[in-house]
Formats: sequence, structure tokens, C-alpha cells
Amino acid sequence: MSTREACLGLDRDDPLRSCRDRFIIPEGTIYLDGNSLGVLPRGVAERLATTVKDEWAHSLITSWNDHSWFDLPRRIGDRLAKLIGAPAGTVVACDTISINVFKLLGAALRLRPDRRIVLSDTGNFPTDLYMAQGLIDFLGQSHRLKLVEPEDVEDAITEEIAVVLLTEVDYRTSRLHDMKALTRKAHDRGALVIWDLAHSAGALPVNLEGCEADFAVGCTYKYLNGGPGAPAFLYVRKDLQDRIVSPLFGWWSHARPFAFDLDYRPAEGIIRQQCGTQAILAMAALDAALDVWDDVDMHEVRAKSLAQSELFITRVETLCGKHGVKLVGPRDMTRRGSHVSFTCPQGYAVMQALIADKVIGDFRAPDMIRFGLTPLYTRFVDVWDAAGRLHAILEERGWNRPEWLEQKAVT
Amino acid sequence: MSTREACLGLDRDDPLRSCRDRFIIPEGTIYLDGNSLGVLPRGVAERLATTVKDEWAHSLITSWNDHSWFDLPRRIGDRLAKLIGAPAGTVVACDTISINVFKLLGAALRLRPDRRIVLSDTGNFPTDLYMAQGLIDFLGQSHRLKLVEPEDVEDAITEEIAVVLLTEVDYRTSRLHDMKALTRKAHDRGALVIWDLAHSAGALPVNLEGCEADFAVGCTYKYLNGGPGAPAFLYVRKDLQDRIVSPLFGWWSHARPFAFDLDYRPAEGIIRQQCGTQAILAMAALDAALDVWDDVDMHEVRAKSLAQSELFITRVETLCGKHGVKLVGPRDMTRRGSHVSFTCPQGYAVMQALIADKVIGDFRAPDMIRFGLTPLYTRFVDVWDAAGRLHAILEERGWNRPEWLEQKAVT
Repeated sequence: MSTREACLGLDRDDPLRSCRDRFIIPEGTIYLDGNSLGVLPRGVAERLATTVKDEWAHSLITSWNDHSWFDLPRRIGDRLAKLIGAPAGTVVACDTISINVFKLLGAALRLRPDRRIVLSDTGNFPTDLYMAQGLIDFLGQSHRLKLVEPEDVEDAITEEIAVVLLTEVDYRTSRLHDMKALTRKAHDRGALVIWDLAHSAGALPVNLEGCEADFAVGCTYKYLNGGPGAPAFLYVRKDLQDRIVSPLFGWWSHARPFAFDLDYRPAEGIIRQQCGTQAILAMAALDAALDVWDDVDMHEVRAKSLAQSELFITRVETLCGKHGVKLVGPRDMTRRGSHVSFTCPQGYAVMQALIADKVIGDFRAPDMIRFGLTPLYTRFVDVWDAAGRLHAILEERGWNRPEWLEQKAVT
Repeated sequence: MSTREACLGLDRDDPLRSCRDRFIIPEGTIYLDGNSLGVLPRGVAERLATTVKDEWAHSLITSWNDHSWFDLPRRIGDRLAKLIGAPAGTVVACDTISINVFKLLGAALRLRPDRRIVLSDTGNFPTDLYMAQGLIDFLGQSHRLKLVEPEDVEDAITEEIAVVLLTEVDYRTSRLHDMKALTRKAHDRGALVIWDLAHSAGALPVNLEGCEADFAVGCTYKYLNGGPGAPAFLYVRKDLQDRIVSPLFGWWSHARPFAFDLDYRPAEGIIRQQCGTQAILAMAALDAALDVWDDVDMHEVRAKSLAQSELFITRVETLCGKHGVKLVGPRDMTRRGSHVSFTCPQGYAVMQALIADKVIGDFRAPDMIRFGLTPLYTRFVDVWDAAGRLHAILEERGWNRPEWLEQKAVT
């Protein structure tokens, strides 16, 4: 891809071209942070207004039944399931990734009572590791968390491992784990796997059923555009659902929540993994946000994501390599997720300059600038221009402002 | 109070009279279920629209800092603190009551490593009991949950008890525990107390600081009108905040969440009790909903609540006693919260008939009809009329419809 014109041509021919109109995107902004907070889908504000004015204000308490609020987490779960290769009845939207990791890790460890090790990698998102640490700490250190480098995970899956806890796409490097191979290896060794799909769901095809995955968690505020802090989700393979209990016996997981029994009795199916009362306003926003996916082929998303990644990497390396900007993560596109990170001298200040120039990415300490490619609304010309603006900033030392240089120290 | 005219007079003289205009209440409905889902405060829909369109859509990821999203749970916590007699920096809005019970019970048990018993009562809301059961189950039954009748709690607080877990106002009977006396007794015996304020916050004056309470949780979708499934909150007394860790080491409780360290290191202060990323849309709605309290004196709320309780109880007993309707819970108004329940033959069908007649209360199995009195928007004349309509339904057997009688079996 050697010209801006050619990018405009790709955009014209893009089978996902019409999807961009489904979102509200600030004029003049190149938003490459949809891997952190997705943009606002059209229809969400209207749905929220309806939920507030017609359901809450007007129907009040009866909305729990009459507007099916109580069932919303499960219905959204079924919609999410289609996006991650899972059958209906295996996914529920609820709580946060952190909480869901705790539930599933607690449940999984009890399925392997003779094993004491949770395996994860140093590329996992910290909250997953912290939740594992908290859980193990609470159990009095009877277990331990073993951390290896991402490339060493496969070899580290031994018969000592109870549970493997992995994020499929590394939040920094974009390195994509081989879900199928690692799940198979874990199963061969008698271990269970919890997959975190935070940077996968809506970013690339996921096939939980095809991989025979045991458990998964994920969030909906990144590539799924559910809004800031939108509800997380979790997946449990059908045959495991009634064999596990999490440590969190909330009333929404009770077999008969409105019997108000004094003793816990777990529900059957995926709702066993619910816990407390869920935020219905946030659920309604998420439900509306998912409308944009109804006719989307995730393989088209993937093809566009890889083409854009390749374009962006090539152009940034060509233009900015001499300024010390270096790709992080795999060079093989098929081993990557849908964001691209580079180490960059004065990375924090450079990202501030980019943001001031209306190219929105983000910064990850100590020196990484990160850009999310979200094929439903990112155009090839955006990718082209973003690389160009990064180059201009580096050439002109446009990042060299005292407040940005100073800020770095406190980030 | 012997006439409807007199009730209209009380409403005219009510110092809280103007508060009703702060809410949107369906015309012609007498809503007595604000103890389950509060009505919509004016300004909430507008704040949500602003959060969606100006913050999320326009400022996107930068809103976490620029619109102080990240800090919203703590700022809301400070607003809630004023309503429950707690100092600034001791309350944070987050997660659900269920999750927050787990956090604080887990933390509290570790402060009493030599004790093995969690004490609660049969009037506690079941999810609190379930969370305790799940936590104890997860610990391998090294601990146990002891349940006594509410009136026996004080005597049951012995030096064997690690933690007392109580809901101040019974969700069915409205019985109010003596927070100060029970907390003092617990402290005398070396136990800690977790107070659930679900039916207290916004319903009556709470003085956590004055009671030297250790821990508390509560919800905001009842008397605080935060919306369906609105964020819960938790309180930790200042001197305990840095001495405890919950089992839930989420990244929002890390000392430096954006350092992305592999190891957990707890933050100081109340934010140590946060966990994962919070639903900002739900938080924004709650923040706006709290505006109605800015000038409200909780003692005025209490005085009105007690007067309305007395009116309602007297009138229902007078009119409906012959139909077998009987008060549940204390007759001494000062020992009650702000809802009133009665046992009622065919209670489910009776409540359906009342709802069809636009008096909204709720039903709790097996035979209880329940009415919430929310002084910011409930008028004396509403209370008068609700009792009258209940009487009319009972007299005319207006509940005697096959679909209501049948429904009872499945509830």
C-alpha cells in the first residue's frame, strides 16, 4: 500500500464500509483506542432514554418482569455467544472481568482438588493475576500462581497444573495465543483453562466450542462498544455448568431466588454463574450496542484487521524507524490481535502530542504507544494518516512540551 | 388521623412537600414499592444523555480523566457517606451488595483468625446469607454460619463469634435492629459487625460513625432512587481501611493500577475495597439521582415515615382486620424501618388486584403483602387511599380472578 489514494480505494471497496455509519464518531478525530473504549453506537442513547423513561419511570418495579430486565443478562449472553463461537445458553453478561475470573477460578480449582498450581503468563492483564493472587491468598497459600513468559506457556502445562489462566490477546504486545492448541494440551494433561477474551471478543473470530474451551471471561467496553465499564461476560461449557459452583453464591444464582430460602441451592445452567442484582441501565446500553453486529461476518472483520495492521506496521516502521520506534509483538500477522504497539522514546509525550493532533491512541508504561484497529469503524485512510501524523510529530519534535515530559514521571 | 381531609392537610403542611416535584411519578399511580425500586428523579435522564453524548461519544477514552470517571465511585461514596453518618473517605460506590458482603466478610474473618463463627439472623436478606455460605464453603468448612432469630442476636454475640452479619431493617417485617447496642455488644465480645443498609440508606437516619460501626454495605436502587440494579456501596471505618484486604484483589484496588505490575499491592484508603472496572453509565445515573438529597434532613424523613407508618397500619388494621390482614413486625414505630408488611390470605392475588388498581406494592412468599413508604414522594393522602383501595378489594373479592389465584402456585 503505497499511497493515500490506494487507501481511499480500499475503503471504497471495503465490505464492512457501511458499518462505520452505525457509530457516532467525533468529526476530525482518528480514534485508535477502540481496544480500550469503543465508540458510541447509534441507537444506544435512544435505548437508554427508553429504558429510563418508559421502563423505569413508567412501569417501575413491574419492569423486572414486564420488560424482562431480570432475564437481560442471559439474553445478552446469547447474543454475545454468537460472536465468540459459543452455543446459546453458555454465556451470561454480568459483573466485571475481575469478579468473573474469581468465580471461574474458584470453581475450576474445586474440579481439580489434587492439584495446586494455577498457570498464567506475564502477558496476562494484571487484574486477572491479582484476582488469582487474592484467591490463593484467601485459601491460605495452599495453592500457587506460576507465571511464565507467554511463549513458554505450552511447555509449562504439566500434570501439576490445575488451571491455566490466559488472556488470548496480549493487551500490550497483541500476541495471540493458540487457543485450540493450548486448550488441547491442557486437556491432555488434565488441566482446565480459563480464557480471557477482553481483546478478542469483537476483534477476531473466536471459536470456544470448536476449541472445546472450558471457561472464558471477557469485557464488552472495548471492541463490543458497550460503553465505559459496560458489563463483563463469562462462558461455561455446557457439560461443566451443573458440575461447578463458584465461591460467590449470590441470590441471582439461586435455583429459586424469589423463594427467599435461608439456604443456598444453585440454579442449573449458565445463570448459576450470576451473583447479585445487575445494573440494568448498563445492560440496556450494551444490548443496544450489540445491534451493530447482527449482520457482521467476523472473518471479514479479521481480514480487514490484519490488512490494516500490516499497513500500519509497515508505514510506521518505514517513516518512524529512524526515530527509534520499534514494533512490539509478532511480525506474523496471523499471530496478532487487532491492536498494534510500538516502543517509542518519549512515548508518553509523543502520545500526548498525537492526541492533541486528534489521533487517539494510548500509552502503556514504560515506553509503549498503542493503537487499536477496529474494523467496523476504522478506515484504511485513518491508518495511513495516523502513521503520517506520528511521523510529523517525531520529525518536528512536536512532543517536546514541558508539561508532557513532566507528566511522564507520574504516570 | 380520621379523615382524608386531614391527610390532605398534613400534606399541605409537610416540610418535605416540595421534594415530590423532584421525581417523575406516573399520573394516577400510588407507588408504595420505593423500598424495592425507587422512582426516577428528575435530572437523571438528562445526566445520562450528557454522559453518553458529551462524554463517551465526544471525549471518548480521555473521559476517564477529563470527566473524572475513574474517580466517580469515590466521589459518589462521599455523597452517600453524608446520608449514613459516615465521614468522607469511608464509603465507595461499587459492585453489588452480594460482592461487597463477600469482600468485607472475607476481610473481617482475617482480622479474627482464631474465631470460626459468623453470626447472622433469619431476617437477613438471603443473598447476604448465601454469600457467607459460599465463602465458608470455599474455605472448606473451617468456619460456620450460625443463624438465630432476630430477637436472639444480642444474646448470641459471644466470644466465639468472629463476625456479626446483619441487615439493619428486615426486608420482610421492617424490624429495626439497634445498631448502636449490637455494635457495642459485638465489640465488647471482640467481634466485628457488617451492617447491611439496603433498607436503611435513604429511609432513616443512620449514624455509622456514632455507632463506631466497623463495616457496612448497602444498595442505591431502593430509597436512594439510583435506578434498577444501581451500584451498591460499602463502608469501612477509617482505622480499619489499611489493616484489611478482601479476597478480591481487582486492579482498581491496586496502589498503582496503571503501572500494570504483575504483583498485587493494595491501595490505601477506601479504594482498597474497589475491584474491577465499574459501570460508568450506572454511576452517572446514581450521581444525578443523589441530587435530590442535597438539602434533605434525614430526621424529617424519619418523622414523616413514622407518621405514615402509623397511619397506614392503623387504617389497614381497622378496615381490613376482619379479612384476616395482620401486621407483621413491631408495633412500636421506633423499632421499624420505612416499609409495612401484613400477612394476608390470598396475598398474591390481593397484590395483583391492588396493582391492577394502580396501588403498587409487592408480595413476599408465602402470604405477605408489603408496602414501602418513601417520604420524599409518598403523600399522606396516598397512604390513606392505598388502605382504602385494599379494603375495597377485600370487600368485593376483587382479587378473585383465576389467573391471579393460579399464578400464586409458581411464585
